[in-house]
Amino acid sequence: MTQSSYHYDVLVIGAGHAGTEAAAAAARLGAKTALLTSNLDTVGQMSCNPAIGGVAKGQIVREVDALGGLMGHAIDATGIQFRLLNCRKGPAMHSPRAQADKKAYQAYIKHQIEQQQNLDLRQETVIDLLTENVEGQTRVRGVSVVGDALFVAPTVILTTGTFLKAIMHTGEAQTAGGRAGEGTTSGISGALARLGFEVERFKTGTPARLNAKSIDYRNLERQPGDEKPQPFSFLTESLDSSDQLPCHIAHTNHAVHELIRANLKRAPMYSGQINSTGPRYCPSIEDKVVRFADKTSHQLFLEPEGRNTGEVYVNGISTSLPRDVQDQMFAMIEGLQHAQIMRYGYAVEYDFCPPTQLWASMESKRVAGLFLAGQINGTTGYEEAAGQGLIAGLNAARKVAGKEAWVPTRDQAYIGVLVDDLVTAGTDEPYRMFTSRAEYRLLLRQDNADRRLTGVADELGLIDAARRERFQTKLDQMARANQLLKAARCDKIPGDVFLRRSEVDWDEMCRRVEGLGRIDAEAAQQVLYDTKYEGYVTRQKMEVEKQHRLASKRIPATFDYDAIGPLRHEAREKLNRVRPLNLDQAKRISGVTPADLALVLTRLEGKKSNLDQRITKPQE
Amino acid sequence: MTQSSYHYDVLVIGAGHAGTEAAAAAARLGAKTALLTSNLDTVGQMSCNPAIGGVAKGQIVREVDALGGLMGHAIDATGIQFRLLNCRKGPAMHSPRAQADKKAYQAYIKHQIEQQQNLDLRQETVIDLLTENVEGQTRVRGVSVVGDALFVAPTVILTTGTFLKAIMHTGEAQTAGGRAGEGTTSGISGALARLGFEVERFKTGTPARLNAKSIDYRNLERQPGDEKPQPFSFLTESLDSSDQLPCHIAHTNHAVHELIRANLKRAPMYSGQINSTGPRYCPSIEDKVVRFADKTSHQLFLEPEGRNTGEVYVNGISTSLPRDVQDQMFAMIEGLQHAQIMRYGYAVEYDFCPPTQLWASMESKRVAGLFLAGQINGTTGYEEAAGQGLIAGLNAARKVAGKEAWVPTRDQAYIGVLVDDLVTAGTDEPYRMFTSRAEYRLLLRQDNADRRLTGVADELGLIDAARRERFQTKLDQMARANQLLKAARCDKIPGDVFLRRSEVDWDEMCRRVEGLGRIDAEAAQQVLYDTKYEGYVTRQKMEVEKQHRLASKRIPATFDYDAIGPLRHEAREKLNRVRPLNLDQAKRISGVTPADLALVLTRLEGKKSNLDQRITKPQE
Repeated sequence: MTQSSYHYDVLVIGAGHAGTEAAAAAARLGAKTALLTSNLDTVGQMSCNPAIGGVAKGQIVREVDALGGLMGHAIDATGIQFRLLNCRKGPAMHSPRAQADKKAYQAYIKHQIEQQQNLDLRQETVIDLLTENVEGQTRVRGVSVVGDALFVAPTVILTTGTFLKAIMHTGEAQTAGGRAGEGTTSGISGALARLGFEVERFKTGTPARLNAKSIDYRNLERQPGDEKPQPFSFLTESLDSSDQLPCHIAHTNHAVHELIRANLKRAPMYSGQINSTGPRYCPSIEDKVVRFADKTSHQLFLEPEGRNTGEVYVNGISTSLPRDVQDQMFAMIEGLQHAQIMRYGYAVEYDFCPPTQLWASMESKRVAGLFLAGQINGTTGYEEAAGQGLIAGLNAARKVAGKEAWVPTRDQAYIGVLVDDLVTAGTDEPYRMFTSRAEYRLLLRQDNADRRLTGVADELGLIDAARRERFQTKLDQMARANQLLKAARCDKIPGDVFLRRSEVDWDEMCRRVEGLGRIDAEAAQQVLYDTKYEGYVTRQKMEVEKQHRLASKRIPATFDYDAIGPLRHEAREKLNRVRPLNLDQAKRISGVTPADLALVLTRLEGKKSNLDQRITKPQE
Repeated sequence: MTQSSYHYDVLVIGAGHAGTEAAAAAARLGAKTALLTSNLDTVGQMSCNPAIGGVAKGQIVREVDALGGLMGHAIDATGIQFRLLNCRKGPAMHSPRAQADKKAYQAYIKHQIEQQQNLDLRQETVIDLLTENVEGQTRVRGVSVVGDALFVAPTVILTTGTFLKAIMHTGEAQTAGGRAGEGTTSGISGALARLGFEVERFKTGTPARLNAKSIDYRNLERQPGDEKPQPFSFLTESLDSSDQLPCHIAHTNHAVHELIRANLKRAPMYSGQINSTGPRYCPSIEDKVVRFADKTSHQLFLEPEGRNTGEVYVNGISTSLPRDVQDQMFAMIEGLQHAQIMRYGYAVEYDFCPPTQLWASMESKRVAGLFLAGQINGTTGYEEAAGQGLIAGLNAARKVAGKEAWVPTRDQAYIGVLVDDLVTAGTDEPYRMFTSRAEYRLLLRQDNADRRLTGVADELGLIDAARRERFQTKLDQMARANQLLKAARCDKIPGDVFLRRSEVDWDEMCRRVEGLGRIDAEAAQQVLYDTKYEGYVTRQKMEVEKQHRLASKRIPATFDYDAIGPLRHEAREKLNRVRPLNLDQAKRISGVTPADLALVLTRLEGKKSNLDQRITKPQE
C-alpha cells in the first residue's frame, strides 16, 4: 500500500451549513482549505424544513451575509417564498424568513464552494483524527480517510451534524444513521472519546413529507409571500415578487390528539427508548399534546419543498410515532385525509460535545487546532450552524496565519450571543436562537447587520470589493442624509429633532428637506431608525446595567414563579426545577433570559414590569 | 408492535432507470403501483456518465418514448448538449446522444413519478421478499420493509442495480456499497439465494470527477452540440440550440500508460482482488492499456455534469487504480496537470441473476409474479435498464389484469433484441446494446420507433391522447405524401418510382409535386426513407433468412479466425476460446453477432463478404 498525503492549512469535515460556511470563510482569508464530505451529493442539504431564517434566525443570516458568507445569497437565489415576520412590531423584531427550493439551494451552495478559490471540495470518508503531543500539549495534525490517505493540516474543523453515533427512531423501529438513507460517522466519535472529550446525546426529529397531488387544498388557508419580498443578502438588489409559491395551513384536532395520547407509550420519547433531550421550540406533536394538554388544535404549515417536486414538508407535526399512527393521524386531518406519505417522520439521537469545552473562537480547549461548529456543539438550526461555521473557519485561518482569534461581542451580533452562550453556559437541550437571548436586541437588528459587521469583516479579509463598495456607498448616503437633516429647520427646530416626533414619517421629511428624497431607500431607513429609536437604545442600555447590578439579589426558597403571568414556560419550568438562591445563579441557568430575570426581579420588588414591552415594541 | 400493511397491484423495488420506467408503465395501465426506494433523493440518479443515448442506446430511448416512457422527455427537458451520432452514415446508424444536467434529470424524473396517477413513490427500505406456495408453485406475495410494515402485491419488480452485495474498490481499499456514499441491499440478496436463484457477480467502474475551475481548457479540443439539435421524444417540438454546453477532448499519453503498467499489480482487476467480469465496451483505462498495448494514446471526453456545477466527468478513464496512481495520471495529461479530483474513480462488484432465469416478459420462471429488470439481469446502461423496466412494468400490470404478456419481437424493436438476447442466451459479461446485435437494424431505426411501437402501445394502454393524436397526424401526413407521389408523373414515371433515383432528393420532389412541400418534415423524412431504402430492406430480410438456413454449417477445428480481417475483436476472442463445431453453435455464443457469423460463413465459402457494408451503409 502507498499512503497518499495531502497538505492544507485548514481541513473542514462535513459539508452542511456549518461546514460550507467554515470552508468558504477560511478560503476567503487565503488559507489553503479542503472541505471533505462522504457524499458530494448532500453538500448544503436541508435535512429538515425547507426554510431559512425566522425570528432571530433571520437576523443571523443577515449577519452571516454581512460577514461575506454564503447563506444569504443562496436563499435569495433559490427562495420560493419570502416573508418579513413581525413586521408590525418594532424593527428589532423584524425577522426575514423564506421557503427554499431545497434541491436548488443545495446545488447553489455546492457550486459556490466548487468555484471558491483556495478551496478543494472532495468526497472523502474520514476514519480518524490525527493528533500529536508537543511539549505536553495535544495538537491536531489532520485526518485519515478511507483509501489509505492522510489529509494533513494544523487546523481541523469538525461539523458532523447529527451523524455522530446516530440512531433514527420511527416508533419501535430503530436504524443506524444520521439522516434517512444515510449512514453514521463512527470513526470521529471514537477519536473524540479517545481524546477525552465529554460527549452527550441529544435528539431531534422531522415530520413526514406528503405528495402534493394527494392533498386537498380547497379548505386550507393559503399563506402567500410578501408583496414586496425583502432579500437576505445586502448585495441582492431585488427579488421577483411574482415568482413565489404559497404555503397552506392545516390543523390538528381533538381526534388526532386522542389518537396520539392512546399511542404515547409507543412513542420512543415516552416509552423510554429515547432518553436524550430534544429541541424545546421545535417539539414533536406528541410533546405538544402532552405539554399543552388543554389545546385542542395545533397549526400545521404545508411547505412545498421546491418548484419541481411534489414533496410537501408538514411543519408542526415532527414525530417519532410509529408509521401506523402517522398514517392514521393524517387520515383525520381536514385536507390531508387522502394524503400519501412519501417519507415518514422520525427522531434521530446523536452525540454532541457540550460546548463549554470550546474557547469562543470555537477551538477546543483540549486539542489545539481542533475546532467544532454546528450541531456537534448542541445547537439546532441551519442558521445557528452557519454562524458558528463562519466563526470557526475565520479563526482557523487566523490561527494558521499566527493571528489572534476574532469573535463578535454580545452587543455586536446574535452570532456573538450564540457563541458566548454556548461556551459560557453550555446547553442542556438543543440550543436555538431567540431575540430574548440578546440583551441588546434593539441594537442587533436585521436591518443594520452590515453596519455592525461589514466594516470589521473588511478588516478581517472576509469580504470582496463589491461588498466593500456597496457598503461604503450606503454609509455615504447615510452621512449625506444626516447632514441634510441637521442643516434643515422644520417648525423652527432642526430636522433630526423634528423627525423624532412620532407622527412624522420619512415622506414628510422628504417634502420638507430639499435633497432628502434622493437618498437610497436602504440608507434612508437606517437614518430613520437611528433617529426614531435613539432614546430607546439609550434606555435599553441603562436597563441592562441596572439588571447586572441587581442580579445577585436573593430569591426566597418559597418564591412562586407560577404567579408571574408573563414568565415564559421554559423559564418557569427551569426556575422551578433549579430553584436558584439568587438572581445571579438564576442568570447562569441556560435558557433563562435577561427578560425573564427582569420579570423575577420586578416580582421580588413587588411591581409590574414593562421592560419587555419596551424592548419588543420600541415604537409605542 | 403493530404491523402495518399496504396493498398494491404492482410493487417496484428501486427507483433508478429501470424502476422508474417500470412503475410509470404499470401505473399508466391503471395498476395500483408503489415505487419503493431507500432514498428519495436518488430517484432517477445517473450513477455514472452524465449522458443518455449513443449508438443503439439512442434507438432504445426513442423506443421507450414511442411506448410512452419517461426517458425521452426527461433528457429533452434537461439536456445540455445534443448530437446525432453517425449522421453521415445511413439512417439505420443514426443515433441520438445527449449530455444531461445530472441533477436536473434526476429531479425531472422524480417529479414525473410523483405526479403520475395510480403511483405512490415512497421512501422505504426493503428487508425481505415474501412468497407463498400455492399448489406446488412459488408465488411472490410482497415485501417487508424497515419499520415493521408489509407491502402486499401479486407482482413485485426488482430493479436493484449494482446494490446487491456490492463492494467498491479503489486500489487496495474496499468499501461495502453500491455507489459512493451509499450502502448495499443485503436483504434481497439473501431472499434470492433462499428462493434458489442462481446468482453471479459482475463488476463495473466509474472514472474520477474533476473540478472545472482546475482544468486548463486552452489546448483541449472543443466538442459542441449539433447546430440543429434533434429531440429524443416524439412529442418534443424543438430544442433550443443556443442553450448548449461544449465538451472537451483530452488525451492519455505514453507516460500515463507506463505509469499504469508499472502499477497494474495494484489494480484490483489484475491483482486478483476482483475476479468478476466487467463491461467490455466500457473498459477501465488499465484494461485499455493492457488490451490495446500498441496504442500510445486514448481519448478522454471531459463532460460537464450540469449547468450549475463544477463537476466534470472524465469519460474514458474509468479505473479502480489506487488514488495515488489516479493523482499521478491526471498530473501527466495536457490540460489536467493541475486538475483537482473531487471524487475518485472506483470499481464496484455486485450480484446479478443470470437472465436465462426469466421469461421474455421479465417474470422469473422460479417465482410467479416476481419480475427482474435492469442491471440485476446483467446488463449495463441507463437505456437498457429503462427498456427492460418498461417491459417488466407493462407485463406485471397485464398479469394483474389477467392478460397475456406482450414483448416486442426482434424485428420490432431493439428492446425486443435486448430481451430475447438476455432470456435466450444470457450473458457472460455486462450486456450492452449494439446495432450489430440486431439482425433487422435497417428496420429498427431511431427515426421510425413510433411507427414500430406507438400503435401497439396505444392498444396496450401505455400512451395518452396527446401522443395518440400526434402520431395519427403524422400517419395522415405520410399517407397524403404517398398519395401525392403515386399520383404525380415525373419524367413520365410515377413520383414514388422517380424518388428512388439516388440523385433525387425531397426538395426536388417538392418542386415537381404540387402540395408535397406542405407535408410536415417528420412525415416527409419517413416517406423519403421508406422509398429510398425499400430495396435494401427486402434484401436484408433475404440475407437474414439465408443466414438462418446456413447457420448449422460445420467449422473445421483448425479454422483460422485471425485471418478474417474485419471480424470484431470480441467475436474473434470468443470464437477462439469456444471454437464452436458449427455455425449454429457459434450463433449461440453470447456476443457473436449475425454479422460476425456472415463473415465466418463467407470465409468458409471462400469469398469476401459485403453484407456488413450493405447493412450499415444502405444508401451506397
